Amino acid sequence: MKLTKKADYALRAVFHITQLPEGELASIGQIAKEQSAPREFLAKILKQLTRVKILRSYQGIHGGYQLARPAKEISFLDVIEGVEGPISLNQCCRENAGCCNVYDDCKMRHFWKRQQNAYLSSLASETMDRYIQAPVAASA
Amino acid sequence: MKLTKKADYALRAVFHITQLPEGELASIGQIAKEQSAPREFLAKILKQLTRVKILRSYQGIHGGYQLARPAKEISFLDVIEGVEGPISLNQCCRENAGCCNVYDDCKMRHFWKRQQNAYLSSLASETMDRYIQAPVAASA
Repeated sequence: MKLTKKADYALRAVFHITQLPEGELASIGQIAKEQSAPREFLAKILKQLTRVKILRSYQGIHGGYQLARPAKEISFLDVIEGVEGPISLNQCCRENAGCCNVYDDCKMRHFWKRQQNAYLSSLASETMDRYIQAPVAASA
Repeated sequence: MKLTKKADYALRAVFHITQLPEGELASIGQIAKEQSAPREFLAKILKQLTRVKILRSYQGIHGGYQLARPAKEISFLDVIEGVEGPISLNQCCRENAGCCNVYDDCKMRHFWKRQQNAYLSSLASETMDRYIQAPVAASA
């Protein structure tokens, strides 16, 4: 019951890119260094974030990564589910919950469903625009 | 980011025992059957729940398991942490959070700390007395 390393690095990568001045691209090397992330693993995560249209990648020697849409339209939920697939706090929390043999008789599933809803709602309302860095004021 | 099988079976075992009429013991076989849990794995979980004083075990041919304290004093948090150790939604959520290299510069950790507090609080307030079964009324 812990955020996976993959989802944590994905959030840290998007956080890093969000903080760049507008128009600037982030290289894998920069993100790996500043977020202390293993480069090969990070490369796969960035590819996946590009595939789900959270990031946009530019090829070439001056290439790198940018957000694919405004930061306020990228939530923690988007990033986590973008690399991990649908979140489910317990096996009974998703629509196809028939996988648990005691589903019908288990009164605890109502608790888990409430937790799931609250958690997904928090993740969905935490958007990356909260992490945009205010530009440093130029000295007079 | 999902409840482990171990913690799920632990909750289901305690849920099963909570629903028994007062004074009745549950055998591993009964719990395994009714909760569709693998018997060997369940046996280890029950031992651990006994070690952390959530269950009490009685040896012998008529032995089995009972709650070690009143159901209202056993929360979901007790059961999950009893078999899994301290819950941490992300690596930065616990006191010894120095394990993350970017801890000091990461603004996202405040979000995770709030999530952690809310989640632990929900798990701590969900106590097993909510799952005591009302006795079936004797027919006149």
